Parts: sequence; structure tokens; C-alpha cells
Amino acid sequence: MTTPIEKLRRRLAELVDLASLEMLASWDQLVMMPGEGASERGHVLGTLARITHERGTAQEIGDWLGELEGSELGELDSDIVRLARRDWERARRVPADLAAELSEAHADGQEAWRIARGEDDFKLFAPALARNIELARAYADCHLDNGGSPYQALLEDFDFGLRAEELGTLFGSLSEQLSPLVAEARGRGPVREPAVPAEVQQRTVAATLRRIGVDEGSWRVDVSAHPFTAWMGPRDTRVTTRYDDGGIESLLSSLHEYGHALYERQVDPALQRTNLGSGTSMSIHESQSKLWENHVARHPAFTGVLASELARAGFDLAPAELHRALVAVEPSLIRVSADPLTYPLHIVLRFELERALIEGDLAVGDLPGAWRDGIRRLLGIEVPSDALGCLQDIHWGGGSFGYFPSYAVGCLIAAQLWETMELQIGPRDAALALGEVAEIQDWLAQRVHRHGRRLDTIPLVEQATGSSLQIEPFIRFVSPFVSV
Amino acid sequence: MTTPIEKLRRRLAELVDLASLEMLASWDQLVMMPGEGASERGHVLGTLARITHERGTAQEIGDWLGELEGSELGELDSDIVRLARRDWERARRVPADLAAELSEAHADGQEAWRIARGEDDFKLFAPALARNIELARAYADCHLDNGGSPYQALLEDFDFGLRAEELGTLFGSLSEQLSPLVAEARGRGPVREPAVPAEVQQRTVAATLRRIGVDEGSWRVDVSAHPFTAWMGPRDTRVTTRYDDGGIESLLSSLHEYGHALYERQVDPALQRTNLGSGTSMSIHESQSKLWENHVARHPAFTGVLASELARAGFDLAPAELHRALVAVEPSLIRVSADPLTYPLHIVLRFELERALIEGDLAVGDLPGAWRDGIRRLLGIEVPSDALGCLQDIHWGGGSFGYFPSYAVGCLIAAQLWETMELQIGPRDAALALGEVAEIQDWLAQRVHRHGRRLDTIPLVEQATGSSLQIEPFIRFVSPFVSV
Repeated sequence: MTTPIEKLRRRLAELVDLASLEMLASWDQLVMMPGEGASERGHVLGTLARITHERGTAQEIGDWLGELEGSELGELDSDIVRLARRDWERARRVPADLAAELSEAHADGQEAWRIARGEDDFKLFAPALARNIELARAYADCHLDNGGSPYQALLEDFDFGLRAEELGTLFGSLSEQLSPLVAEARGRGPVREPAVPAEVQQRTVAATLRRIGVDEGSWRVDVSAHPFTAWMGPRDTRVTTRYDDGGIESLLSSLHEYGHALYERQVDPALQRTNLGSGTSMSIHESQSKLWENHVARHPAFTGVLASELARAGFDLAPAELHRALVAVEPSLIRVSADPLTYPLHIVLRFELERALIEGDLAVGDLPGAWRDGIRRLLGIEVPSDALGCLQDIHWGGGSFGYFPSYAVGCLIAAQLWETMELQIGPRDAALALGEVAEIQDWLAQRVHRHGRRLDTIPLVEQATGSSLQIEPFIRFVSPFVSV
Repeated sequence: MTTPIEKLRRRLAELVDLASLEMLASWDQLVMMPGEGASERGHVLGTLARITHERGTAQEIGDWLGELEGSELGELDSDIVRLARRDWERARRVPADLAAELSEAHADGQEAWRIARGEDDFKLFAPALARNIELARAYADCHLDNGGSPYQALLEDFDFGLRAEELGTLFGSLSEQLSPLVAEARGRGPVREPAVPAEVQQRTVAATLRRIGVDEGSWRVDVSAHPFTAWMGPRDTRVTTRYDDGGIESLLSSLHEYGHALYERQVDPALQRTNLGSGTSMSIHESQSKLWENHVARHPAFTGVLASELARAGFDLAPAELHRALVAVEPSLIRVSADPLTYPLHIVLRFELERALIEGDLAVGDLPGAWRDGIRRLLGIEVPSDALGCLQDIHWGGGSFGYFPSYAVGCLIAAQLWETMELQIGPRDAALALGEVAEIQDWLAQRVHRHGRRLDTIPLVEQATGSSLQIEPFIRFVSPFVSV
């Protein structure tokens, strides 16, 4: 006879497999698929989403949970049941019709956004954005019976337990403390990026990743239009990057994706094939990518490793010069190419605006103006066009509201974890100068990765660092950059 | 309100999507996946198979079919219902326990086969083979309530409507008529393969495929240990081949895989996302690959195209010499590298032996001896070891009985189709000398491809060629090879 916990675990393992298939199909679409396969792939992903939803929201799961919640369970099974209850209830609250409408609106919205950005004409995007906002509110309504604001409900899809109120306060202090640094940076001239050929970048990235454990037995490194990470189980990890002639972005973005990948690979094996066996939230995930991008790749000691790999690939550059380029601060218009100091300010603006849009405090038609005002206030520069302003990101076109904050929260947590780690195991300078990262990997595995979804964002930060979410470590990290 | 035909079509479309996912996951496993991802991929494929089986055998499908079978339907919907009934009943006849046991035994059997072949020790494989045979009989028993032999039931999984009795007669005549040709070939010296470097083969294959319509918009060409074809919808086709230094196998195998691919791409678009929208049987599929391998790639006129592409890739070879290598006949031990004339005799032997094993006329322990006798009788050569004898193919280790015949039947149908086509649209020599294949593609689309699964093997052959399955066209095709 199969016990309820066995039935539940079997279903959860099945949902892990379906998620793995979804990741494979999406990875393939972005990396391997011939272009004309797109419409068929859309059907396949739609079917997969429908089946996953059906099996993840089935009434029988509630029945098993009902039986289990009254019974004696071990520590691990208790956590499995606790998260299964949360996921099941959240998923069931959204009616199938609304889910279908959301998915259609998001596809339409991305298309409208693409056209509007191409034409630099916000009016072409406004109706789709208005529809996405309306549907996001309807979606939020499904989760409001415990009170809270609509934006709060959306946030919890990405970061359970994070409070919009507290984020508002935190981001307020962050922009206040960054403000004088931004002003100082504006007074300095621009730093030119070294013009590294694409092919040299590719060899440098491959060699650097190999040094920190990326082997062919359980990794792939590919090229895609936008860098991302996919994992089909803990021993099949796939990172992508892009190599544009004449820049060094791939050196940072490959380490960034490595951070996401390492997180998923180091979850406690006992949690695999359960609902606890993956990263716990968007902001913890982003903290892991930012830790490797900001605190390893931009570390002055590790710059020596990067410079030596560049040299081996045929491009000579003094480590100090490379480091200067990697940490150069210059207020700019585009988030994805922003420097490490001003990057979170781009997020603060998006958070303010999307929260106001969802809560009804900002009309869609007023968005472009509010964007210009915000960039002027936070970065002190003028926005010449909506394509370089409120039309630059795909997120709102695709109906993602509440996702942006994790990018900034990730920066903060990364800095806080790094400081804690160096306090506990000593400064990393000597090891990083040799390209040695095993102790960093181990510390992260113990303090962050192994927990999987057993701890939510804030409890995880508190347990790993001994204090609540803070902005000071990040300020301490970026302050020196204005005088490099 | 959703009508029964809408419900049925929706479910069938879903099954198409699940099959597409299965193909993607298998293609990825063989072409892209890092090796250590294998065990997780096993879980994923198992889950996918279970869900597909569950949704393909659900009682509700029977209910919809019951309603539809009494009602007025268009020609297309009638065929959809007819095939849905057949597939549903065949799938439901196999109990879940037996399906699970089969799948486990096949995985074990492949592993045992791998070890036994490596050690050249049949005894290490015999127990697994015996278990596979026993389970294959149990599986066949599920389909026997209409009478027929166990082997017949197995055959129908791959080629519905093909009769084991008739195959026996056909293969008997085939080996009789090939026998004097084989004897003649044995009297001639061996023909040496031109030693084309792997890199030259790769460029030649790419250029040749490009000339016959393989473009990046809807195709991929990759490398794998064994050449195969996968399709994720009609505009996402993926062929693989391998490039071993010093041979020309890739020139033939890439055209072979192209034939499989073209079949799936040219099914009538009206059948897409239904149960009729793919190739109808293994032997028709193999006829399409063999048509391009035997009748195009080995055509003396097309050899000029191949030679010119080889020259462009830096390898000079006279067309006549290339042609001689492509059609050289020499009885040999290994099926996959057999010449076009003796190839079907390898299949005749496997058919005789697997039929006898299943029907209880041959004991597992007697297989190695029966194999040696058969090779001596059919090809006139001695088998020095079981690794080069009855352990050479993976099929029986994986529990595939009834699959082999399609390889030979495909050769016969290809020759029969080619003769019919040349009678109808004229000899292809002039067009093939220029690398022009559009008329061949069109003829195949009209006569074979567009039907999808609407016609089974034999009715399709009869409708396309005006006569029943014959061996004479194949004999006429291969006879000249012994004197090239």
C-alpha cells in the first residue's frame, strides 16, 4: 500500500520532471531551435504548462496534505508538506480562465512591446500595458484574502515573505546613500572599455570557467541573445553568454550565470526530486549571481586571473586597467549595461513605478514622464527617448510585475553574504589571486545552497549572516569605485 | 459546448505535443546533454512516458469514440477516429505492470548486451535475452484475441498490416534471387574506400544538404554516435551523422537521414496536430531513407554532385571512382556497414532468428550457432566471434522484436517507388547530374508523404505504385553493382 507521504513525494517528483522538461524546451528554444520551430514550440510549452498546472493543483494533493498535516512527520517531510500546502493553495487560487487570459495577454504584450520599442512610440505599447496591469490586479485579487496590497501579492510569486512596505523603506535609504556617490561619479570622465575581440572573450570565458569547476561532464556553455542559466537536474547545468566584439561584458555575465548555476548544483542531495530541491527565491538566486559577478569577477585579486587568461588568449591588458574597466562608474540610461554602483538605482525606479501602476497611483499614460523624472532625480541624466527609457525592458510587456526588486535585493544580499564570509573564513585576496574558489563554494553550499527552499529569503539571510537585510555592506562595496 | 470530435482532437494534439517533447528530450540526450545528466534524464523520460500513456489510454477517449463512431463525419475526421480507436485499444491492452516490467527489462537487457559484446561472451547476455523473449511473448499475448502468432503481434507495433507469413515467403525469394549475385561478388577483390578526412566530409555533407533544401531556418545538422533524425513539428527537423576519418559513410548516412526528415516535413498540413500527422510505419519510413541513400546518393549522376562538393572541400576524387566505392559489393559481417546488395540478407537472417526465438522454435542457447550457420548460408562467410555475430546489434537487448524486417522491406519499397516515379516523370539522370531534386520531392509528397498515417504500409505501396510489394525492382537496382 502506498502511504500519503509516498503519494505526495511521487507527485512532487513528477512535477520536478515536468519543470525540467519545461526548462529543456525553453533552453532549446533560445539556444538550439531553428527559428521556424517557434510556433510548434509554443504549442508544446502550452500543453506542458496545462498538464503541469492540472497535476500540481489536483484535489488529491489536498487530500494527501489533509491526512499528513495531522500526523507525525520527520523534519524533512514536514518541510515538504509545508511548502506543498503553500504552492498548492497559491496555484489553485488562480482560475484556469484567468491563467489562460494572462498567458495570452503576456504573449501579445511582448509583441506590442517589441514593436513599440522598435518604433520608439510608447502609444503602441500603452494599451497592452494597461491590459497587463488590469490582469495583474485580477491575479493579485486571487491572493488577497489574507489582506495586503495587490503589489504585495505579486511580489510573493518571486520572493515569498518579502514586504513591499519594507522594500520601499530600504530602497529609499539606498538611493539616499548612493546619491552623493553618483554625484561624485558624474564629475569624472568616462572610462573606456578595452576592445577585446569576441573570439578572445570566448576563449577567456571558457578557460576561466574551467578553472572554477565547469567541466564537460556536467556543464554546457553556449551562446544566446541574452545570457541565462538552465538546469536539468544537478548534474546537467547549462549557462549561456554572448560575445560582442569590443567589450568585456561576457567576462562578467559568465561569472554571473555561474553563480545561478552553482546555487542549483549545491542544493542538499536529500532534497532532490522534492519540492524543496531548488533555489528558494528570485532575490536569493540573484544574490548568488551577483556574488560571483560583483565580488569575485570584480575583485582586484581575481582581475589578475582574468588578465592572465586574456593574455593566454592573445590579448594583453594590465590587471589594474582591466579592474578599472570592470568597476568604472558612470550614470547611464540602460539597466543591463549599468555599472555596479548605479545598477540598483535603475531597479529602485522600476519598483516605484510598477508599484504605483499596480496600486493605481500612476496612470499608464503618465509613465514616460514619470520615468524621465525618476532618471533625472536618481542618476542626474536626461532620457532622450522612450526606447532608451520606459520601453527598454521586456518585463512589463510580458506581465512581470514584482520581479524587478530581486535584482537590487540580490546585490544587497550578495554584499552582506560576502562580508560575513570574509569575517568567518578570512579575506579572499590571496586565494582569488590564484583563482582558488573552493572555500567560497563550500561556504555558500553550507550557508545558502544546501537549504534549497527550506528557508525563505529573509530567514535565510538572517541565518547565514546573523542579521536582517542590510544596505551598508553594499555601500561599503561600491564606495571605492568612484575613486578607482 | 465542446463536441466529442473537438475533445478528441484536443487530446490528440496534446499527445502530439508530448511526443514532440519526448523526441526533444531524446535528441538532446544523444546530441547535447552532458554525460552526467543521464540518470536525471531517465527520470524525466519515465515521467513523460507515464503521463503520455495515462492520457492516451484514458477511458474518456473510449467514450468520445463511442459517440463519434455512430455519427456522420467528414473523410478526415473518419480517419482520425479510425486510427484513434486502433491506437487506444492497442495501448490499453498492455497492463501497466507489464509495461513497467518491459521497460525495466529493456534497460537491463541493453546494459547486459553492452557488457557481453565488450567481453565477446554470449553467456553474459543469454539470461537477459531469455527474459526479453518471455516478456515479448507476454506482450504479444495482450494482442492475440484476434488470433495470429505472437511474432505477428509484435510486428504490428512497427508495421500494421504486414503479415509475418508473407514476409517469410518474400524474404525466401529475395535471398534466393540474391544468392547468385552474392556468389559472383565473392569472386571479386575488395574495393577500397577513399580516405576522406572527417573535416572534408563535414563540409561536403553540409554543402550537399544545402543544395537539396536543408536551410538553417528549419533544420539542424549535428553529430552523434549513431546517425538519426528527430522532428519537433514540421519546421524543426534535426538530422545527425558522424564523421569518421577516412571513409565516406557520412555522405550516405546524411542522405539517408534526410529521407526520414523529408517524409515528416511533407505530411499534409491538414493532418498536423492530429494522430495522422506523421509517418505511417517503420518500413515506409525506411523506404524514404533508403530511397535517398540508395537511389539518389548512389546514383551515378548524383555522384558527380558529391564529387564536385568533395573537390570544393579540398578532396579530389573522380566521380567514377567515388561511384565504385559507393556501390561496391562485398559480403561482410556487420549489418550497419554492409553494402546495398547484401544488406537485406543480414535482415533476412535476423527475421528468421527472432521469429524462431519468439515462436519457441529456437532456444536462446542455440542462437550463436544458428547465426553462424545463417551467415554461412546467406553470405558464404565465416563468423569468427559472437561480437561480430549475434551480439552486434542492440535491438534484442532493448527488447525490439519485429523491428528488423522494416530495414529490408524499406529497401524493396524504395526501389519499387523509384521505378514507378521514373516511369511517371522520366529518368532522373539529367536532373540529378545538376543536383536538382525538386521533382523527386514533389512526387514523394504527392504519392507517399502527404498521406501521413491515413494509409497503412501495403495500401500505400499499392496506391503509389499500382502493384503489391515486389522484390524485382530491388533486384534490378542492385544487380549491376556486382560488375561496377
